[in-house]
Amino acid sequence: MQHTLTFTGENIHATITVPTNTLLADAAQHAGVDIGQPCGGQGRCGRCAVQVTLGNARRRSTLRLSPEDIAQGFALACQTVVEGDLAIYVGPQEKIERRLTTDRVVAEITVPPDYDYDQVQSIQRVHLDLAPPSLEDQTDDWSRLQTALRTQVKMEKVACSLHLLQTLSDTLRAGEWQVTAVVERNIQQPEMPMRLIEIYPGRVDEYSPLWGAAVDIGTTTITLWLVDLVSGQVKAQVAEYNGQIGRGEDVISRIIYSSKNGGREELRQRVLDTINGLLDTACKRVKVRPEDVMKCSIAGNSTMIHLLLGIPAGNIRLSPFITSVNHPPLLIGSEVGLAIHHEGTVDCLPGVASYVGADITAGVLSSGLEDSENVTLFIDVGTNGETVLGNRDWMVTCACSAGPAFEGAGVLNGMRATTGAIEEVWINSESLEPTYRVIGGGKPKGICGSGLISLLSEAFLTGVIDKAGNVNLSAKTKRVREGSHGGEYVVAWGTETETGEDIVLSRVDVDNLLRAKAAIYAGFTVLADTVGVPLESTSRGLVGGSVGKYINVEKAVQIGLLPDMEWSRFEFLGNTSVKGAYYALLDWRRRERIGDIARRMTYIELSADNSFYDAFTSALFLPHTDMTRFPSVAQALDKT
Amino acid sequence: MQHTLTFTGENIHATITVPTNTLLADAAQHAGVDIGQPCGGQGRCGRCAVQVTLGNARRRSTLRLSPEDIAQGFALACQTVVEGDLAIYVGPQEKIERRLTTDRVVAEITVPPDYDYDQVQSIQRVHLDLAPPSLEDQTDDWSRLQTALRTQVKMEKVACSLHLLQTLSDTLRAGEWQVTAVVERNIQQPEMPMRLIEIYPGRVDEYSPLWGAAVDIGTTTITLWLVDLVSGQVKAQVAEYNGQIGRGEDVISRIIYSSKNGGREELRQRVLDTINGLLDTACKRVKVRPEDVMKCSIAGNSTMIHLLLGIPAGNIRLSPFITSVNHPPLLIGSEVGLAIHHEGTVDCLPGVASYVGADITAGVLSSGLEDSENVTLFIDVGTNGETVLGNRDWMVTCACSAGPAFEGAGVLNGMRATTGAIEEVWINSESLEPTYRVIGGGKPKGICGSGLISLLSEAFLTGVIDKAGNVNLSAKTKRVREGSHGGEYVVAWGTETETGEDIVLSRVDVDNLLRAKAAIYAGFTVLADTVGVPLESTSRGLVGGSVGKYINVEKAVQIGLLPDMEWSRFEFLGNTSVKGAYYALLDWRRRERIGDIARRMTYIELSADNSFYDAFTSALFLPHTDMTRFPSVAQALDKT
Repeated sequence: MQHTLTFTGENIHATITVPTNTLLADAAQHAGVDIGQPCGGQGRCGRCAVQVTLGNARRRSTLRLSPEDIAQGFALACQTVVEGDLAIYVGPQEKIERRLTTDRVVAEITVPPDYDYDQVQSIQRVHLDLAPPSLEDQTDDWSRLQTALRTQVKMEKVACSLHLLQTLSDTLRAGEWQVTAVVERNIQQPEMPMRLIEIYPGRVDEYSPLWGAAVDIGTTTITLWLVDLVSGQVKAQVAEYNGQIGRGEDVISRIIYSSKNGGREELRQRVLDTINGLLDTACKRVKVRPEDVMKCSIAGNSTMIHLLLGIPAGNIRLSPFITSVNHPPLLIGSEVGLAIHHEGTVDCLPGVASYVGADITAGVLSSGLEDSENVTLFIDVGTNGETVLGNRDWMVTCACSAGPAFEGAGVLNGMRATTGAIEEVWINSESLEPTYRVIGGGKPKGICGSGLISLLSEAFLTGVIDKAGNVNLSAKTKRVREGSHGGEYVVAWGTETETGEDIVLSRVDVDNLLRAKAAIYAGFTVLADTVGVPLESTSRGLVGGSVGKYINVEKAVQIGLLPDMEWSRFEFLGNTSVKGAYYALLDWRRRERIGDIARRMTYIELSADNSFYDAFTSALFLPHTDMTRFPSVAQALDKT
Repeated sequence: MQHTLTFTGENIHATITVPTNTLLADAAQHAGVDIGQPCGGQGRCGRCAVQVTLGNARRRSTLRLSPEDIAQGFALACQTVVEGDLAIYVGPQEKIERRLTTDRVVAEITVPPDYDYDQVQSIQRVHLDLAPPSLEDQTDDWSRLQTALRTQVKMEKVACSLHLLQTLSDTLRAGEWQVTAVVERNIQQPEMPMRLIEIYPGRVDEYSPLWGAAVDIGTTTITLWLVDLVSGQVKAQVAEYNGQIGRGEDVISRIIYSSKNGGREELRQRVLDTINGLLDTACKRVKVRPEDVMKCSIAGNSTMIHLLLGIPAGNIRLSPFITSVNHPPLLIGSEVGLAIHHEGTVDCLPGVASYVGADITAGVLSSGLEDSENVTLFIDVGTNGETVLGNRDWMVTCACSAGPAFEGAGVLNGMRATTGAIEEVWINSESLEPTYRVIGGGKPKGICGSGLISLLSEAFLTGVIDKAGNVNLSAKTKRVREGSHGGEYVVAWGTETETGEDIVLSRVDVDNLLRAKAAIYAGFTVLADTVGVPLESTSRGLVGGSVGKYINVEKAVQIGLLPDMEWSRFEFLGNTSVKGAYYALLDWRRRERIGDIARRMTYIELSADNSFYDAFTSALFLPHTDMTRFPSVAQALDKT
């Protein structure tokens, strides 16, 4: 039986006819109405709630709804099925669903001083001068080109795709037998055939750019660098929230969503849309076409890589937590669905295990840990909170689900570290009035990860919140008040902000931040305990993550995100994953080292370890239940 | 400006709106009305004529139309453009456009006695028993499978496509870690990576069939053999007219058609449709699915291979006659568009030059010429009339455009050598009454190649036609009469035939047959002259072609198709091309030998040779202008 559903809301007017028992979330999707499902459709987060204003719907689960909510018609779109005609009001979606414009990311990148395009770049561009055919020399086009490759540039055994064979005859003649070929070689195994990627008529200036892209697919944020492979220079840097975010905020929720009917294909399309959009933006900035990009190196956690490639990810989630592939083969643009050159190389970097992926192996390479003599701690402050401990001789690693709070997602006024984000906050201990710094210097739009860390630390030290994260409603300031999400502290009044609305830190936000920092802290402490290396004995603490570069180490220690080591031992590296992908993009030897790192790392499965849960709950306080772990913070608290 | 066209005819009722200047042939195609263009749309054959019964059309060329035709509204669809609303009557199309049902082809094939599946077949099926994963062994699925391939069946370095990676995790678990893999290996270069084609859950009986297909794409006829790669046995043989035939009867017309807008893609689709249809028929016969076919070896002339692969063929036709590719790379089913397994290997065999393709290299292998000690003549009685002369030490080859007459196409009552075809004819020299033999023994439907040769010879020897091919209208028999195509001889009255209509040999048919036999004869005589080897000194004459097996040698000599050598020196081999493709399909060593043959053959370009034209015109008589070349025929004529 068919039923008619009418969706209304801000800029929403849609009607659709669906059969009985259709899930409300699916009906909305078919009607073109986007309803976020941050938990992946498990009915756990409650954030896909809509209001049924007319008609009856069957609620499978009301876990997140109060009797009052239900009385008012609220229903979870992911848990409610259609049983008759319905009118549905869709309230404002979370901020994160509003697509932010991608603006300039400002990492300072220097080309590795040893970069030698001719020696270490797998993509080479060569000019060839072919002898024209005649009745005396009726050699076929492809053999003629192969001969030129062999005799003029010493490229033996080059393979050609059907796609290129179809254009070959026209190209050779358009260039009057002068052509420029782009060829991929396997530097490590020179006996393997090379691969022809493109052939252009005529001669191309040998110093003109040859394009590549380094990509980091984060669970929350995707970063892309557009690189000239000839000079090695990064010519554009762009970043954007991962388009999958509305279908699960963490990898587990994404995997659950991907296991639903059509979910895998939808998530694949969403991540492709984000990457292709970034590619387009970056290419426009340097005035090239996406199809001019000949090679793409991709880092990302194992779930992100599986979802990008359309490979089932379900077993990542279920014990014994098995990936389908840790070392994906080299692929080409058209089969992956990337808008780069049809035959361009897509190199998904190798990972270690289900929860330690290529973002970490690439990060370890770019951080220099794998080459260091002394024991080093590497922490990726991202959604999955991976940690690596080790040196050039040994490496152990683990991961824990921190959630996206430090990337500004899942936090009421959170945003990415981009123009308009509050990146640092100071609170006057007397007046409890804040001072803040905004990226770009204009009016604030929200708070990014480093701002949240700074704010949490300041609020804690000034008593605005207590060690359990409760907002002190008796504090003598108008900035502390009861909000719709519990107690909250107003960082910026609406009169000062870009949106005209107050920017606040709510109790719910504090909880999300506490859980994130507790997971990360628990991860590396359990890891250190497992191998019997005291954290104090590590010589360096390297912190990565797209938020990492802006973190104030003092404040990160004060909230208990980082261990209480000498501050100078910490180094903030920014997005180590995209940087590792960039190194791999440039240099085949570095690419091979990432493979070695993946093979050398020992993965510790925390989910099989009870001590992790204990460490996590102990860390759910500011800075920790065990204050002896944070002597410098105890000292600072004594002073106030 | 838009105009409305209405097409009518037998089973034709279509209306379409098209802009001014649309070609009538294109308009018909968009309206779903199939109008054959045997000359490829050059306006030369006149066979796409339709009748414009209402409205005006602009005729670009009326070369083939009489003033009376034009007065009656006739126009060539390939040469006429729309300038207003039109009503168009489409007369009955040529017989060849009616799709004949594919029936059993009866070549007797024996598996090569040295066939050893384990040793020489590139496609291997192996059973693997994987250790299930655990928390202690979290190896990813693909590495686990690679380990099993390496340790259990000694297959190092196996490559896996993205497509298979996407199914891998489910397959491994469905088979409870017992799987059967189909792998392609490169026997000649064992250091090269193998390729995983398919993986099935569970164990498959090692003697159960593993399917392959050998295909010969003739300009006129396509033949497909379905082969069990394990036993080597041919399990089904099917053949059908090439679906491109309505877009050009010879390769030149096809190339011209392919160079028009959309022509290349249309011809590609037509040949794919024919092959996929044959595949379907063959597979149904042995009760398997086309996607079970793991490998396909394809022979065909260079134009057919280019058109199959969507590679521009235009330069084949223009001096200096260059192919895009003579040795195509190994491809897979999905990229070619064949309905075999998505990842199944497609091996288009190598050719020599524009007019000597893989059908000849495969034919030379299967004929044994390349291995013979004595000088041998190999003639392919097909649309392109290729000839090879040589032995194990040297080979020269040439080609000439014979046309499709000997395959029953372009002849009024012609048909393929299948059930209902008259395959041999005798004419009583007194009464001029014929006797004939029909394939399958039932009522005749038409005449196939061997029947036409036999009929032409008998008509000539009994004086029904003279040496120039004129029908003797004064002959004392009702069977000779003036028909719509000039003088004709009735082979079977309508009362005896399947269709109820007379089966005749017309003056036009005789001309087509004369041109075909003259071209072939001229080809091998010029070739022999070029290398200075008298035809009489050749030890054997090997005759291939899908018509070849049924030719009566005496009659073929009498019409001047074959040289007047001792009859016992001729051997009729049938379709040597598909047989060569079958050998290549089975045995990688034989496949390599076809590559060697292609490299070793010296191609003689006849179009650059005036002597060919002289030889051709001299051969346009029965049997030849120079009767000293045919002493046995002179003797036979003296007797009558």
